[in-house]
Amino acid sequence: MLRLIFVCFTLFALTCINALVPDFCIADLTGPETPSGYTCKPSANATVSDFVFTGLRTPGPKIDLIKASISPAFTAQFPGLNGQGVSLVRVDLDPAGVIPMHTHPRAAELLLVTKGVVVGGLISAANQVFVAKLQKGDSMIFPQGVLHFQINVGGNTAVAFASFSSEGPGLQFTDFALFGNSLASDILEKVTFLDEAQIKKLKAALGGSG
Amino acid sequence: MLRLIFVCFTLFALTCINALVPDFCIADLTGPETPSGYTCKPSANATVSDFVFTGLRTPGPKIDLIKASISPAFTAQFPGLNGQGVSLVRVDLDPAGVIPMHTHPRAAELLLVTKGVVVGGLISAANQVFVAKLQKGDSMIFPQGVLHFQINVGGNTAVAFASFSSEGPGLQFTDFALFGNSLASDILEKVTFLDEAQIKKLKAALGGSG
Amino acid sequence: MLRLIFVCFTLFALTCINALVPDFCIADLTGPETPSGYTCKPSANATVSDFVFTGLRTPGPKIDLIKASISPAFTAQFPGLNGQGVSLVRVDLDPAGVIPMHTHPRAAELLLVTKGVVVGGLISAANQVFVAKLQKGDSMIFPQGVLHFQINVGGNTAVAFASFSSEGPGLQFTDFALFGNSLASDILEKVTFLDEAQIKKLKAALGGSG
Amino acid sequence: MLRLIFVCFTLFALTCINALVPDFCIADLTGPETPSGYTCKPSANATVSDFVFTGLRTPGPKIDLIKASISPAFTAQFPGLNGQGVSLVRVDLDPAGVIPMHTHPRAAELLLVTKGVVVGGLISAANQVFVAKLQKGDSMIFPQGVLHFQINVGGNTAVAFASFSSEGPGLQFTDFALFGNSLASDILEKVTFLDEAQIKKLKAALGGSG
Amino acid sequence: MLRLIFVCFTLFALTCINALVPDFCIADLTGPETPSGYTCKPSANATVSDFVFTGLRTPGPKIDLIKASISPAFTAQFPGLNGQGVSLVRVDLDPAGVIPMHTHPRAAELLLVTKGVVVGGLISAANQVFVAKLQKGDSMIFPQGVLHFQINVGGNTAVAFASFSSEGPGLQFTDFALFGNSLASDILEKVTFLDEAQIKKLKAALGGSG
Amino acid sequence: MLRLIFVCFTLFALTCINALVPDFCIADLTGPETPSGYTCKPSANATVSDFVFTGLRTPGPKIDLIKASISPAFTAQFPGLNGQGVSLVRVDLDPAGVIPMHTHPRAAELLLVTKGVVVGGLISAANQVFVAKLQKGDSMIFPQGVLHFQINVGGNTAVAFASFSSEGPGLQFTDFALFGNSLASDILEKVTFLDEAQIKKLKAALGGSG
Repeated sequence: MLRLIFVCFTLFALTCINALVPDFCIADLTGPETPSGYTCKPSANATVSDFVFTGLRTPGPKIDLIKASISPAFTAQFPGLNGQGVSLVRVDLDPAGVIPMHTHPRAAELLLVTKGVVVGGLISAANQVFVAKLQKGDSMIFPQGVLHFQINVGGNTAVAFASFSSEGPGLQFTDFALFGNSLASDILEKVTFLDEAQIKKLKAALGGSG
Repeated sequence: MLRLIFVCFTLFALTCINALVPDFCIADLTGPETPSGYTCKPSANATVSDFVFTGLRTPGPKIDLIKASISPAFTAQFPGLNGQGVSLVRVDLDPAGVIPMHTHPRAAELLLVTKGVVVGGLISAANQVFVAKLQKGDSMIFPQGVLHFQINVGGNTAVAFASFSSEGPGLQFTDFALFGNSLASDILEKVTFLDEAQIKKLKAALGGSG
Repeated sequence: MLRLIFVCFTLFALTCINALVPDFCIADLTGPETPSGYTCKPSANATVSDFVFTGLRTPGPKIDLIKASISPAFTAQFPGLNGQGVSLVRVDLDPAGVIPMHTHPRAAELLLVTKGVVVGGLISAANQVFVAKLQKGDSMIFPQGVLHFQINVGGNTAVAFASFSSEGPGLQFTDFALFGNSLASDILEKVTFLDEAQIKKLKAALGGSG
Repeated sequence: MLRLIFVCFTLFALTCINALVPDFCIADLTGPETPSGYTCKPSANATVSDFVFTGLRTPGPKIDLIKASISPAFTAQFPGLNGQGVSLVRVDLDPAGVIPMHTHPRAAELLLVTKGVVVGGLISAANQVFVAKLQKGDSMIFPQGVLHFQINVGGNTAVAFASFSSEGPGLQFTDFALFGNSLASDILEKVTFLDEAQIKKLKAALGGSG
Repeated sequence: MLRLIFVCFTLFALTCINALVPDFCIADLTGPETPSGYTCKPSANATVSDFVFTGLRTPGPKIDLIKASISPAFTAQFPGLNGQGVSLVRVDLDPAGVIPMHTHPRAAELLLVTKGVVVGGLISAANQVFVAKLQKGDSMIFPQGVLHFQINVGGNTAVAFASFSSEGPGLQFTDFALFGNSLASDILEKVTFLDEAQIKKLKAALGGSG
Repeated sequence: MLRLIFVCFTLFALTCINALVPDFCIADLTGPETPSGYTCKPSANATVSDFVFTGLRTPGPKIDLIKASISPAFTAQFPGLNGQGVSLVRVDLDPAGVIPMHTHPRAAELLLVTKGVVVGGLISAANQVFVAKLQKGDSMIFPQGVLHFQINVGGNTAVAFASFSSEGPGLQFTDFALFGNSLASDILEKVTFLDEAQIKKLKAALGGSG
């Protein structure tokens, strides 16, 4: 008797499926973006690989200056995240490695340390400073949009995974934003109060001009 | 000369701070909840411990039947998550341990395996099945509200951390919801097509009555 | 004198209309979907039929097993719902007909009984059971994502209309999700605690394999 | 063996329940409101009557002028709707009864006719007019915030139920807003272009002054 | 040493940029719209002119009847607003000029007077009337969707800028919606209680028919 | 005859009003905050002053260093904004005055220049720089969360009003966040690459310690 229920779902599948809204929207990375994310590839074409990301098994390319690597799993890397409101970044830090002061313009970050000892710090708009030493298994929340940083303060490599409250959190390193482009030095001086010599030095180091 | 800027922020601090909206809303767990979360404790009273959670350093209490433990970091455990749209759960699985079929009614889950080998599976409303074997460092997205599960298929303990697109994702184990309460067996039979004997057996096992 | 106002709106209409954002986004069902819905057909092409749906005048096709029919008015059926955050389903139940245990992954359901006597039930994640007998004119709210069901307990046909807090609420029947596809029986056994025989029986009945 | 799982959920219930976020937020109507709704009553105190509303079984009080009655099921009437993003209104119309021109400032309306024949009409900001004759079972979508109305054009009583994409949609009758209060007639004349006599007549009829 | 950090951002730029989600979505006005806004033009093609709008330097075309002009900066005029949740309108009022009774179906309005003296008024659904005389520098909030108006009550030209909580707030003038189209007079009479003569007069004045 | 309609709204007012959801939520600044804003004061107690803010008629207190003043109209200053998703800040700049590099963690900013000539600049996470000279009447959009600044480049005082896509946008001046508190200099050095001398100098100037 139970067989009959599948009439709707198998024999009359076309009709029935029409009635259903897909439960996911795998990003069609070749299509246009919208304020809510990428357009969806047809849900019938979804495969298990759309829901799985293996790109964080190993550290990303080391950035020598900061003695760290940063590997994102945002929609562009992991199309199944499209429209799901969550994403991930893997961070590997050599001893004394740092993730320099930065913000995520569109998401809160929930950092989880999976190896080593990491200091996390955040500064609120009311100028409160919150700094904590995190062990393996500890997590720290960095509210949306506020300045924060991480430092490996242990003697060995540290690894952490940051989750975000958006699949497109954004990532703006303060230093790179200030000094890694052509924003004129005299403007920069006016809006940061930094000395000219300091600005020139960092522009040179970070590939900026002007 | 730069000294003058802090006039606003220190001497006239009361006035200035009035102009600022706190960047966070640490949950006052003694206060009422609202559809958007708990009421906030005064931001001036925030301490670094509000932003840090150490409760996931070790596995939660083992549940023998499933050979697994589940430790949440939702707002009730981690008040700094309030209103931030992200949360975390630690899962430890003995060999053959399982996280039984379940849903999160209000969030997508992004699972990260940090130890061992885990099979993750999800079933969409269109009845597509997506099952994958995940190694350390792999992640899998389970879209909001759909049925999914995890199984340790390796020979050793497996550990995974699940991030959610809400600080209050909810967690409904299908089995426990069906059999762990007083929902009448005859109703259950009608709405699940399960045999009476099967229902009685599971009700007995899961503490249900009726 | 009043005539002059229409200068903007008729003579200079093109300019003026540019200033206006359409009040609706009729789904272009031939176009791609996005996480926020379908792309819009040009608003100038909207006709009254985009705003009206007549497909719920009569019951949908009867599903014998459950002695019920289910007719949706989601965006795919009713393009005017696109982006409006509300949709409708018509349910017809023969005596003893049931809408089996299910969830809507992305919406709350507000059920309105328009004929007969229907028992509605829901189970929360905290394992509370709420069951009520509903008469004509009664409504019941099923919170987003939680398990629920309906049964006709009267002697005659019952009819109900379910409204949803989304135009794409999704619909996942627990039984069909568990047994109506190729999810391997041994996995299913592990994650549901059901007996093998029970699983095989339901897989056979619901068109599943494996 | 299955018995063990309920250790977490029964013996250790307090701990476990702490880990769970309630799946609903029944309005505490004695508490304050917030932009997201009322504060929640403790979820442990929820009863089935919080999820059920029987106030729409019969028509509301007839308003003679419009030959119609309007009965809402918003949060204030139906506390279980709090935070669920959906609500309901019952409308009964005598022959030639009307629901006068109005808007819902914060929700789209999905009207379902359950008896009789009703004309529904809406006017978009681009000044398009969409008018349709609706039979029993037909539904019509009125996009958020735009002017619309309903008229019973059949020979018998008509009944309709309107669903909304918010549990607090609001309801602003244009006439009552313009003429049912103390807004000065000379201001009204300026901002509506209506003649003074017409304004005075409607103010008198609708209880307005000034 | 600092030079090394730019390895990621310049030498390996393609890889790195892939990891970043654009911080903006400039509207591609030639593409389709979605419920969340227009599709984005490629972020690499953004120019400073996408972020700047100079169209409000001078008043828009005068509408003689209302002795006022209205110039919008919505997405269609200012593509950089796409997805940003804020927009602007410039209003210029001759002495005794008015912005007639209207609503914004999808946004709250925050009016700022920059020249002259303006009376702003709003009517809530609970029929409360709030009227205020605003000087240069004063602002007034008109909650989403409710009826409101503005009048220049000073002896000179007044100027005001209205900000909205959406880049597509919509704008529905009550008069124009009622009388500026083909909505049949007899229907209008029924749903507004206005006299036939009044309706005919305003239809004639505002370009309506029927 | 029209008189009868007001029966519902006057004689039976209590009943009727119960059916209505207030169209606004004036902040009760003495009550707790929630993630969605302040609790509401009773809507019946609302007065016109709740909807009007006169605090931006004149410049705020001058901050000599930046030759500028900043006056906010967020919810704490203007309770009627609560839950409305829009707010305002007045900025006055002497010649060469600057609004230093800053972000708004939770809102986009739409700047309108009402006097003088202002250079606005923004830096995206992809390190694009967009700088524009704005005249009276020009507006510029600064996407949510990204670094931006303004400078008066004219010979006279400049005035601008910034609208935000939230009533609580937040405001984090990079300099003040980095140097105006007790964040340890050695940490700061590590996460900003600034020289120790520069850090010490700015800490001294901005009231920081450590």
